[in-house]
Amino acid sequence: MRALVLRSSPEFDSTYSPPIAQEGEALIRVLKAGICATDVQLIQGYMGFQGILGHEFVGIIEQCPNQKDLINKRVVGEINLSCRQCATCKAGRLTHCPNRTTLGIDRKDGAFADYLTLPTENLHVLPDHITDTEAIFVEPLAAACQILDQITISPTDQVVVIGDGKLGLLCAQVLHTTQCHVSLLGRHREKLALISKGGMSCTTRIEDINPGADVVIEATGTPQGLAIASQLVRPRGAIILKSTYHGNNTVDMTSLVINEVSLIGSRCGPFPKALQLLNDRKVDVEPMVTERYPISRGLDALQHATEKGALKVILEMN
Amino acid sequence: MRALVLRSSPEFDSTYSPPIAQEGEALIRVLKAGICATDVQLIQGYMGFQGILGHEFVGIIEQCPNQKDLINKRVVGEINLSCRQCATCKAGRLTHCPNRTTLGIDRKDGAFADYLTLPTENLHVLPDHITDTEAIFVEPLAAACQILDQITISPTDQVVVIGDGKLGLLCAQVLHTTQCHVSLLGRHREKLALISKGGMSCTTRIEDINPGADVVIEATGTPQGLAIASQLVRPRGAIILKSTYHGNNTVDMTSLVINEVSLIGSRCGPFPKALQLLNDRKVDVEPMVTERYPISRGLDALQHATEKGALKVILEMN
Repeated sequence: MRALVLRSSPEFDSTYSPPIAQEGEALIRVLKAGICATDVQLIQGYMGFQGILGHEFVGIIEQCPNQKDLINKRVVGEINLSCRQCATCKAGRLTHCPNRTTLGIDRKDGAFADYLTLPTENLHVLPDHITDTEAIFVEPLAAACQILDQITISPTDQVVVIGDGKLGLLCAQVLHTTQCHVSLLGRHREKLALISKGGMSCTTRIEDINPGADVVIEATGTPQGLAIASQLVRPRGAIILKSTYHGNNTVDMTSLVINEVSLIGSRCGPFPKALQLLNDRKVDVEPMVTERYPISRGLDALQHATEKGALKVILEMN
Repeated sequence: MRALVLRSSPEFDSTYSPPIAQEGEALIRVLKAGICATDVQLIQGYMGFQGILGHEFVGIIEQCPNQKDLINKRVVGEINLSCRQCATCKAGRLTHCPNRTTLGIDRKDGAFADYLTLPTENLHVLPDHITDTEAIFVEPLAAACQILDQITISPTDQVVVIGDGKLGLLCAQVLHTTQCHVSLLGRHREKLALISKGGMSCTTRIEDINPGADVVIEATGTPQGLAIASQLVRPRGAIILKSTYHGNNTVDMTSLVINEVSLIGSRCGPFPKALQLLNDRKVDVEPMVTERYPISRGLDALQHATEKGALKVILEMN
C-alpha cells in the first residue's frame, strides 16, 4: 500500500505492507487524513517515532472479525491503544495507560496510508451528515473539548485563548459554545478572521485583552506562551496548557504561587462531545482547511503544513 | 519601642516609634512572634521589603477605638491588609487584593516589635486553651489548610509531602487529618521524627515512596522540589506548589501536559480552620519549636533560624 513513513526523514513508500488486524482490531481503509503540528514535531525528532505518520483520519472499516456489523461503517478513531488491564486503565484514565501505544505517534503505524488498524473500542461511527473533511477534525476538536472536562466554565467567565493555530481556533470555538466571553489572541489576522463570531473578540494585540482573565488557554505551541498566559490570568485563575514542545521552559513559579494560579495540563479528549458539536453545527471547521493533496504528493503536503500561515493540510487517499 | 527592623540588613532598634492605630485598626501588644522562612528570604532581598519584620504573632489588644469589647483580648491576625473595595476583594479574593499591603512582608511594619497595628477585620480572638506558642503557628497552619480549600482529598488518596521544613511538617499533619495516606519525604530524620504519626510514612529516601501519588505537596522551598514532585505524581494528579524562592525555575512543561498534571499555587489560608485544628488537638506544633529568644537578642534569633536543622525560632517580647 501507499504510506508516508518517517524513517530518518519522511518518505513516500508505495510498497509498504498493509497492516493486519489483530484480535479485537478492525482494518480500516483510510479516506482522508489531517496533518497536525505534532506530525511536524515528530519529523523534527519528538518522541523518537519511526513508522507511518498520522493520527487524524476518517476511514471505512473493511475487516472486523469480532464485530462484523461494523464492516462498511465510516469511522473516526481514538489514538491511544490502552491495555485496559493496568491500574491506570481500571481507574478510567485510559489515555494515560503506561503500556499504551499511540497511532502515528508512539510505536503504532498511523493514518497517512491506505490502511490502518485500531481496536474496535477506539472507533466511533460517524453520522452521515458529518462530512469526511469535518471528520478529520474530530480528534483535535476532542482535545479542545477536554478543557470542559477539566474545569467548569461559567457564562460570566472571561476566557482568553492564546494561539491562532488549528488547536487555538478549535479551543476558542469550543469555549464560545459555553456562552462565556472568549478573547482570542493570535498573530495572523487572516486566521482570526476564519472563526470570528458574534461575541468573540479576536485580536493580534495583547493590549486589546483585559488582564484578569478567569481562564487562559495556552495553545501557542511555543515556550513563550506561558509567560503571556501568566500575565493575563487573574489571581486564583486557571491556565490550561495545550502546548507541547521539545525541551524545558523557564517559568516564574513563585509568582504563580503568590497568585495561586492553577496550571492544568490538557491533552486528548472526549470524541463523543466533539462529534456532538459537529453534528449540532456548533463549530465550523471547514474554513480551516488550507489545502488538499493526494497521498502520492504527501511530502509536498508535509512541507506545506510547516509553512507560515498554513492551517489544516489534508491528505486524500482516493 | 523595641523592634527588629530590616534596613540594608536587619537591625535591633530600641527606640522605634510605636505604630498608631488607624481608622478600623487595633493596637496590639505583641507577646511572642515566630520567625518564618519568608523572613529569611526578605533579609536576602525578596520583595525589596524595608521595615519591621515578622508576620506570625500572638498579642493582646490594647487600643481599639471602633470595637472596645476587643480590648484585652488575646488575638492572632491575618496578614493581608486588603482594600475591601476593589473587584478582587468584592469577588471574595481578599488575599489577592491588588491594593493590599502585607504585615512584615510588603509596606506594612510587622510583628517583631513590642507593638503592631492591624484592621480588626483581620483579627481572631483565641480560645483560652490554645497556648501562646501554639498561637504563633496559626498563620502557617492556615497556609497548610489552604490546600483543603483548593482540592478535594479523599481517604483513599495517596498524598506525598516533599519538604520537612516547618510548612512541610504542618502540611503533612493537616493532610493526615483527612484520613488519606500521607508520605512525608524530607532530608532530616530528626525533623521527620517530630511529627511521625500512626499511618503516616516518613522517609528521607525517595525510593521508599510509591510513585503514582494522587497529590504531591511541594514544600521544599527550593526550585528542585518541582522536578521531584513531577516524578512522584500520577497522570491527572495534582501538585500543590507551596515553595516561593528568588528567580525562575526550569520546568519540563511538556511532560506535565502529556500527563495532564495540575500545578496549583497555594499561599495564605483560612485562620478559622487552623484554630479549629489546634483547638481539637488534631495537630501538634510545640515539638517544632527549636529555640526561644528575647527580642533584645533578635539578631541572634534570625541567625539561628537560618541554621541547618532549625525549625521554629520564637521571639518573646516580655
